Amino acid sequence: PTSLDLAIVPGDGIGPEVVAEAVLVLQAVAADAGVTLATTEHDLGARRWHATGETLTEHDLDALRAHDAILLGAIGDPTVPSGVLERGVLLPLRFALDHCVNLRPSRLFPGATSPLDLDRVAPEGFDLVVVREGTEGPYVGNGGALRVGTPQEIATEVSVNTAYGVERVVRAAFAHAAERPRRRLTLVHKHNVLVHAGDLWRRIVEAVAGDHPDVTVDYLHVDAATIFLVTDPGRFDVIVTDNLFGDILTDLAAAVSGGIGLAASANIDPSQANPSMFEPVHGSAPDIAGRGIADPTAAILSAALLLDHVGLPDQAHRVTEAVAADLASRGSEPRGTSQVGAAIRARL
Amino acid sequence: PTSLDLAIVPGDGIGPEVVAEAVLVLQAVAADAGVTLATTEHDLGARRWHATGETLTEHDLDALRAHDAILLGAIGDPTVPSGVLERGVLLPLRFALDHCVNLRPSRLFPGATSPLDLDRVAPEGFDLVVVREGTEGPYVGNGGALRVGTPQEIATEVSVNTAYGVERVVRAAFAHAAERPRRRLTLVHKHNVLVHAGDLWRRIVEAVAGDHPDVTVDYLHVDAATIFLVTDPGRFDVIVTDNLFGDILTDLAAAVSGGIGLAASANIDPSQANPSMFEPVHGSAPDIAGRGIADPTAAILSAALLLDHVGLPDQAHRVTEAVAADLASRGSEPRGTSQVGAAIRARL
Ligand SMILES: CC(C)[C@H](C(=O)O)[C@@H](O)C(=O)O
Ligand SMILES: CC(C)[C@H](C(=O)O)[C@@H](O)C(=O)O
Repeated sequence: PTSLDLAIVPGDGIGPEVVAEAVLVLQAVAADAGVTLATTEHDLGARRWHATGETLTEHDLDALRAHDAILLGAIGDPTVPSGVLERGVLLPLRFALDHCVNLRPSRLFPGATSPLDLDRVAPEGFDLVVVREGTEGPYVGNGGALRVGTPQEIATEVSVNTAYGVERVVRAAFAHAAERPRRRLTLVHKHNVLVHAGDLWRRIVEAVAGDHPDVTVDYLHVDAATIFLVTDPGRFDVIVTDNLFGDILTDLAAAVSGGIGLAASANIDPSQANPSMFEPVHGSAPDIAGRGIADPTAAILSAALLLDHVGLPDQAHRVTEAVAADLASRGSEPRGTSQVGAAIRARL
Repeated sequence: PTSLDLAIVPGDGIGPEVVAEAVLVLQAVAADAGVTLATTEHDLGARRWHATGETLTEHDLDALRAHDAILLGAIGDPTVPSGVLERGVLLPLRFALDHCVNLRPSRLFPGATSPLDLDRVAPEGFDLVVVREGTEGPYVGNGGALRVGTPQEIATEVSVNTAYGVERVVRAAFAHAAERPRRRLTLVHKHNVLVHAGDLWRRIVEAVAGDHPDVTVDYLHVDAATIFLVTDPGRFDVIVTDNLFGDILTDLAAAVSGGIGLAASANIDPSQANPSMFEPVHGSAPDIAGRGIADPTAAILSAALLLDHVGLPDQAHRVTEAVAADLASRGSEPRGTSQVGAAIRARL
């Protein structure tokens, strides 16, 4: 591309601080690559909800759809009742923009601090990516409750899985696996208990595997997958899984690879009908917001995923390697948000 | 009690081997305590399914119900299609015997090999127990599929949660927490997304907390809980959660405390209308079955949970401490199943 038109959603808490650093990185590499970068801020999240009662409007969506991609900081604040912004902003964004592919890489960067005894469980390090379905599963809001507040209350949550929805994310996961050196894909589900959804996932993985004879496929129950993530994370290359299992596995994978302070994610509409969205996995961390101490690394790595997605893989690689170099040289001295950002930009 | 009448379900794979050692331990402590121990074997699992096509019959259930408690080895074999024995034997046992409380302790025994960098993430060790609901959630078999095998397929799985079902397990969890030194209970759910079920769990925990002012209560989303299990397992005392989250968290907790080779579990009907069932969390491990090398520790710890449940807490403690002493002195030399069993009995 010769130009890039981004929507920036700084959001709440540390969102604006970390996104600002990511934007500086994007500006630096765009200039080098001769790409004109335009950014437009969009106001979503707690502040606006408090001020106007609005979460995500049709008008917001129209405005966001006009951009090439979206960079989001974080949404959420303890002053807003739990669920309001999740189900009012974050999830509606994913659903309305058809972000069916939620890509979450977990790579052990040299210098990152893992809670694992790495010498024993991952002497060679690890480099995995979870391809999480983003528009189905128990996230569809298809539950209900009867006789609420009585001893006869019953509450249900329905996981909805369609061949259409599963196939598109499975195809994306295979395509991704085929481009990686190890070409390995692990389906994670719980088909011994969740038999209908599990069978659908299993059959579709089998069918799509036929188009990718070069990709090795295996299967793990979700409980077993959590065990391997801590005892042998190096066994994983690409994991494909549903929305809820993906939520759980990606936080765990982030934790073992150095914490959600490093975890980036991409919410992708592979049809390109809608702009994809890039965001750090961490939340708004209100306890440290506004103090200039939040780590912008995950936001910067999310910007790298954005660059890759919009067709600037070399610039994406530059950013990721700059982060890797910075991480490898981090000492124990605490650095501020802008210090980390500047250090990473200096290594570009 | 002066007598104890146990149903023994050796099951498949390594089940018979590890259960045999657990029974020897039970016999030793029962003799010391002046308790007459009777054991009756029940044949359930792959072998019987292959021979007769039967999984769990009404007749089996009647026979099992006649005992004071059940000790189970493992059920499952690769020669049986996935799900047949899970949904034909294991889950029907839990549902028919109303095993709503699934107790899974994870204690870091000195000498156990954790994948975690313990010096950093758990310098004081940890000792937690997950109280998993056992008869509801997405385990109820309440899913379905339409247009199977077509591009229009849709598959659903329904998580069913009732006030009745949630309250009884929450009460059991509080009672358990109240008896532990730290008196701390963490509800794990995902109420920002699974709003109906999440609200029900949250309200019931709040209500029951009123009866236990001595218990400190907090809440974690399931994704955050997996992070803390690897970055700060010592923060947990008692976790209460639903059937599926409990399945995932208990395997992870087992992994960080030394592997599912050490993980014991109790499936309890607190009403005492049905016998409770005790089983190692590990599976039938067909790859090492019949070779006398399976570790019987989890089965023996399950026997300790059984002793505690039937009113022999001192004998339960003896067994647990014998296991702890054995673990603390384990070298790197591999020992066989009966060697480990004998070593533990020698330390009683
Ligand atoms: C905030 C929440 C709705 C969200 C999710 O569950 O998807 C978050 O945990 C994530 O992983 O992006
Ligand atoms: C075998 C399977 C049905 C079972 C479960 O999911 O409960 C197992 O994983 C467990 O944790 O006991």
